[in-house]
Amino acid sequence: MSDYRAPLEEIQFALETCGGLNEWVNTPGFEEAGEDLVAAVLDEAAKLANEIIAPTNVIGDLKGAHIEGDTVVTPDEFKKVQEAFVEGGWSTLAYPESLGGQGLPGTLAFAITEMVTSANMAFSLQPLLTSGAIEAIIAHGSKEQIAKYVPNMVSAKWTGAMNLTEPGAGSDVGALKAKAEKQPDGSYKISGQKIFITWGDHDLAENIIHLVLARLPGAPEGTRGISMFLVPKFHVNDDGSLGDRNDVRVVSLEHKLGIHGSPTCVMAFGENDNCIGYIVGEENKGMRNMFTMMNHARVGVGLQGVSVAERAYQHAAAFAQERIQSAEIGAKTRDAVAIIRHPDVRRLLMTTRATVEAARAIIYRNVWAFDRAHHASDPEVRRKAQGEADLLTPLSKAYATDIGVEGASLALQVFGGMGFIEETGAAQFYRDSRIAPIYEGTNGIQALDLAGRKLNDAGGEHWKSLIEEMKEFAEGMDRGMKEYKDTLVDAVTALEDAATTLFANGFENIVDTAAAATPYLRLFSTVVGAYLLCKQATEAERRLAAHDGNPAFLRAKITTARFYVEQILPTATALLGPIKAGSASLMEIDDIDFCENR
Amino acid sequence: MSDYRAPLEEIQFALETCGGLNEWVNTPGFEEAGEDLVAAVLDEAAKLANEIIAPTNVIGDLKGAHIEGDTVVTPDEFKKVQEAFVEGGWSTLAYPESLGGQGLPGTLAFAITEMVTSANMAFSLQPLLTSGAIEAIIAHGSKEQIAKYVPNMVSAKWTGAMNLTEPGAGSDVGALKAKAEKQPDGSYKISGQKIFITWGDHDLAENIIHLVLARLPGAPEGTRGISMFLVPKFHVNDDGSLGDRNDVRVVSLEHKLGIHGSPTCVMAFGENDNCIGYIVGEENKGMRNMFTMMNHARVGVGLQGVSVAERAYQHAAAFAQERIQSAEIGAKTRDAVAIIRHPDVRRLLMTTRATVEAARAIIYRNVWAFDRAHHASDPEVRRKAQGEADLLTPLSKAYATDIGVEGASLALQVFGGMGFIEETGAAQFYRDSRIAPIYEGTNGIQALDLAGRKLNDAGGEHWKSLIEEMKEFAEGMDRGMKEYKDTLVDAVTALEDAATTLFANGFENIVDTAAAATPYLRLFSTVVGAYLLCKQATEAERRLAAHDGNPAFLRAKITTARFYVEQILPTATALLGPIKAGSASLMEIDDIDFCENR
Repeated sequence: MSDYRAPLEEIQFALETCGGLNEWVNTPGFEEAGEDLVAAVLDEAAKLANEIIAPTNVIGDLKGAHIEGDTVVTPDEFKKVQEAFVEGGWSTLAYPESLGGQGLPGTLAFAITEMVTSANMAFSLQPLLTSGAIEAIIAHGSKEQIAKYVPNMVSAKWTGAMNLTEPGAGSDVGALKAKAEKQPDGSYKISGQKIFITWGDHDLAENIIHLVLARLPGAPEGTRGISMFLVPKFHVNDDGSLGDRNDVRVVSLEHKLGIHGSPTCVMAFGENDNCIGYIVGEENKGMRNMFTMMNHARVGVGLQGVSVAERAYQHAAAFAQERIQSAEIGAKTRDAVAIIRHPDVRRLLMTTRATVEAARAIIYRNVWAFDRAHHASDPEVRRKAQGEADLLTPLSKAYATDIGVEGASLALQVFGGMGFIEETGAAQFYRDSRIAPIYEGTNGIQALDLAGRKLNDAGGEHWKSLIEEMKEFAEGMDRGMKEYKDTLVDAVTALEDAATTLFANGFENIVDTAAAATPYLRLFSTVVGAYLLCKQATEAERRLAAHDGNPAFLRAKITTARFYVEQILPTATALLGPIKAGSASLMEIDDIDFCENR
Repeated sequence: MSDYRAPLEEIQFALETCGGLNEWVNTPGFEEAGEDLVAAVLDEAAKLANEIIAPTNVIGDLKGAHIEGDTVVTPDEFKKVQEAFVEGGWSTLAYPESLGGQGLPGTLAFAITEMVTSANMAFSLQPLLTSGAIEAIIAHGSKEQIAKYVPNMVSAKWTGAMNLTEPGAGSDVGALKAKAEKQPDGSYKISGQKIFITWGDHDLAENIIHLVLARLPGAPEGTRGISMFLVPKFHVNDDGSLGDRNDVRVVSLEHKLGIHGSPTCVMAFGENDNCIGYIVGEENKGMRNMFTMMNHARVGVGLQGVSVAERAYQHAAAFAQERIQSAEIGAKTRDAVAIIRHPDVRRLLMTTRATVEAARAIIYRNVWAFDRAHHASDPEVRRKAQGEADLLTPLSKAYATDIGVEGASLALQVFGGMGFIEETGAAQFYRDSRIAPIYEGTNGIQALDLAGRKLNDAGGEHWKSLIEEMKEFAEGMDRGMKEYKDTLVDAVTALEDAATTLFANGFENIVDTAAAATPYLRLFSTVVGAYLLCKQATEAERRLAAHDGNPAFLRAKITTARFYVEQILPTATALLGPIKAGSASLMEIDDIDFCENR
C-alpha cells in the first residue's frame, strides 16, 4: 500500500501546459526533445522510481547512515539505487553533450527528479546537491576545472556537496569563519568546520567534490569577503586518476527528525593543516557562486514538497479506498462504506491533491523559465525569462514546501489512529517533509527575497508582467470555468494591491514590508497556483470537447481546479488585510516579554 | 533552554476573564475557592510542573515504555512524578469530598492539567484517562461500584483506562465485536481484543480499572447494542484489598511517532476464558456512558494542543532571544542582532502565542460552562450552561489541537536547521502534538458534531445565543480596541451567515453540510477566539487605566489580541465562501480516480 506510482498523466499534462513541452523542439539545443522521446524517457523514469527506488524509502528511514572509521556508510539498498541511476544515465539528462550529458531540457530533468524524490527523498538529495555543484563549477570555474571535475560528476561517478553553514553562520552566510590561505602554487589551504553538510560523506561514489565557502586573510567582512573553493575528497591526478586523500573528514552525523537515509555531516577541513582547495571564480566573489548553486537547489527543494506530498496523498488515497468505516452521510442504508465516501475525508485528500497540483504547475513553469533564460535565441526573451524564473523561485521553494508539510499532515490524518503508528508509513512523510521549509534558505528568507529583491528587480517589471498576464486570463474566463471568473479576478486584484502597496513602501516602511512578507508570498503563490490550475482546466475542457485524451483524467483536472478556486483561494485573497495592516502588532511587544511577564 | 515555566499570569488572567474565577466563591460547592486559595494552588502546581515533571519530558521520549513479562515498564523518572502527584493530592482537586476529593472547580483542575501536560504530555494522559473513567463510573455506576473503585482512583492509587477501539472499529465504535456473557452471579465474562489503549498497562499504580465496551449475545447491531463493563486488572476483595489477577493482559505496544512515554497497548481480554467484568449502568446503554467519558476527555485533549504549543512557544522564544544572526531590517548598523528582532521570526512566535491564548480562552470558558452545568443553583442556568459546554466541546478539541500542531511546527521553524535535529527538542513537540487531532474523535468527527448535533441541539438555541453575545460585544467596541470593531463585526456576521446556511440545509442538503463542516469549525473557533481575546484586551485596558496589575503583561495581552484580529481572523472570515460553496467540487471525482487515471 505504501507503493509509489509516478502520476505520469498528470506530470505529462503539467509539462505540456506549464513546462513548455510543446515548445522544446523549437528551442535551440532541445531539438531532439520531441513528444515521443519525452514520453519514452518519462516512462522509463517512472519504472526506475516505482520499481527500483520507491521500495528503499522505508529502509533508508529505518537503517539510516552511520560512520565506520572515517567514512559514512549508507544502506546497501542505496548502492543498488545508485548503480541503477548511473547505468541508466539519469544524472546526465540536462547537461551539455560536451560534458557527457544528453542536452535535454532542465524541465524534463525536473519532472524526473520529482519521481525520484517521491520514491526516496533522502536519496534524492545526493543528485540534487551534485547538480547544484555542477552548475556552480560550469558557471564560475575555469576551463581546466570544468574538464577535470564535471564529466565525472555528470555521470554520477563522483558526487558534489555544498559546504556553507557553520555553527555561527546559518541564514547569515556572511558571518562564516572558515579560512583559506593562498599557497605558492596557486592552490589554497582550507581550514575550518562546517555543519549540516548533506551527503558530505558517503560510500556511493568514488570521489566527492566539495564546494566550500571560506574567507581569505584580510578579506572584507560579511558576504563581500567570501570566496568559493573546490575541495576534492581525493585529489585528482592530471590523468584523471585518483590520488591521495585530501585533509577533509566527516566528524559526526546529526540525529534528525526525518530523512534518516541522508547523512547530515559535520565536516572538518584542514585538521592536519593539509586540506588543499582550488578557487572557483574570483577571490571574494563566492556569494555570487553560491547563489548559482542555490537558485537551482531552491527550486529543487520546492519540488521535494510536491514529491513527498504527492506520495503521501497516494498512500492515503489508497487507504481511504480500502478502509471501511461508518455509513455514508445522506445514504439510505447504514452499511459501512470506504472512508473515501466521507466528505471530511475527501477534504483532506482533495486539499492535498489540489495544492500539490498547483505547486507542481508553479515549479514546472519556474524551471521552464530557467530553460528559456539559458536557451532562447532572442536575448530579450532570455532576459524576461530570467526575471520570471527569479521571481517564481521563492514561490516554488516556500509555497511548495509549506504545502508539502501541510499535505503530509493531512494525509496522515486520513489514517486516523493508524497514522500515528510508524509502521503505517504516513509518519515518515510527515517527518521527512518538515526539513524542506528550512534548508536552502528558510521560507521566511524566501518571503523576504520575494518582498525585497524580487519586488524591486527591474523596477517591478517581472511581477507586473505576470499579474497582467493573470488579469487578462481571468477577465477572459467566459467559457467553462466562467463561474470562477469573479473569484479569480478578485484574487488577482488583491495580489496587485498587495504588491503595489509593498512596492510603494520603499525603504521608508521596510519593516512593514518585512512584516508582510510571509502572507504576501502565500497570497502570491496561491493566486499563481489558481491561475495555472484554471489554465489547465481550460485546456482540459478543450480536450474533452475535442475527444482528445483520457476523459477521466481531464474531468478530474477540472474538478481539482474548481476545488482549489472554491476552497483554497478565498483565504489567500483575504491575506490582503494582514499584508496591509503594517508591523505594529507584530513588533510592539518588548523582546523580553516574549518570555517574561507571563 | 528546554525548561518549561508555567505562564501563571496568563493562566490566572484567563481564569478570571473566561473561566469564571471571580464567580467560583458564589457557586454552590465551590465556596472555598477564593482568590487566595486559588493563587496558592496555582503556585504550587507551577512548582510541580516546572521542577518535578518538566525535566522528565525528554527522558520519556528517549526511553519510552516497554513490556517485561506481562507488565509494561515505564521510565523510573515517571515513578517519581507519580509519587509527587499522589502525595500532593493533585489528582483529587475536582472530585467530591465524599470520594476523597477536594471539591474544587473543574476549571481550576483544568488549569493545573494544562501545566502538567506542558511539562510532560505523555505522562499527563494517564491522569486524563483516569478522570474520564471516574466520571463515567460516578455518572453511571452503582453505589457499590462507586464506593469500591472510585476513591482509590481519585487518590491516584489506581488508574483508569478506556477500552473502546478495535481493529475494525475506530471512529465507528458501533462496529466493535468484543463480547460479554452474563454469569449466574451477575458478573460478565469478557472476551476480545482492544487496540490503541492508552496507559492500558503500566507499573505506576497498584491496580488499573478498565472500562470496556462490549456486546452482549443478541444485542442490537451498531451503537445501540453496546454495553460498558468495569474490568479491574486485579480483582478487588470486599474489604478493599487486592485479589487475584484478572484475565486481561497487554499483548504488545505500538511504535509511535510521538508521546513515546505513554504506552499505547494492545489489550487481550479473556484469553483464558476467565476475564470477569461488571456492567456499568444498563445493558446496551454503553454509548451514553462512553460519551460521558469522552466529553470530558475531548476538552482534555484540546488542552493538549494548548499545552504542547505553549511549551514549544516558550522554547522557541527563549532561543530567539539568544540566537544572534543577521542585521536588523531598517537599522542603521549592520551588526547582527537576536533573531527575535526579525519580523518574520516574530510572526512565527506571535502566531503561536496568539492562537494558544485564543484556544486557552475557549477551553477555560468551555470547562467553566461544564462546572456551571453541574453546580449552578438555577436549573435554567444549568441547562444553558450544559448547552454552551456541549457546543464549545468540538471547538476546544479540534481547534486547539489543530493550532497545537501548527504552533509546534512554527516553533520548530524558529530554530532553522537546529529545529530538525532531535537533540534541540523542538522536534519532540512537533511529533507529540500530532496525535491530538486524531484521538478522542478525529477533528473531522468534531466538525461533523458541530455542524450536526450541536447545530440542531435545542433548535439552535445555544449557537444563536453565543453569536448574539458576540455581536453585542463587537457592536459595542467603542473604546480602546475600537479600530477592530468592523473586523470583528464582519467576522461574527460571517459566522452567523454560515451557521444559518447550514442550519437551513437540514437533511435535504446534509452532504453539503458535511462538506462544509471543517471550515465551519475553523471559522466558528477563530471568531470565538477573537471575541474572547478582545474581551480580555478590553479588561486589560481597564486595568491599565486603573493601575491595577502588571503593565507589561497587560500591554502584551492587548497587542496579542490586536495581532489575532489583524493577522489571523481575516482568513477565517473568508471561509464563509468555501462553507457556502456546496459539496460538488469535493464529491464529484470518482472514488477510483483518486488513485487511477493520473
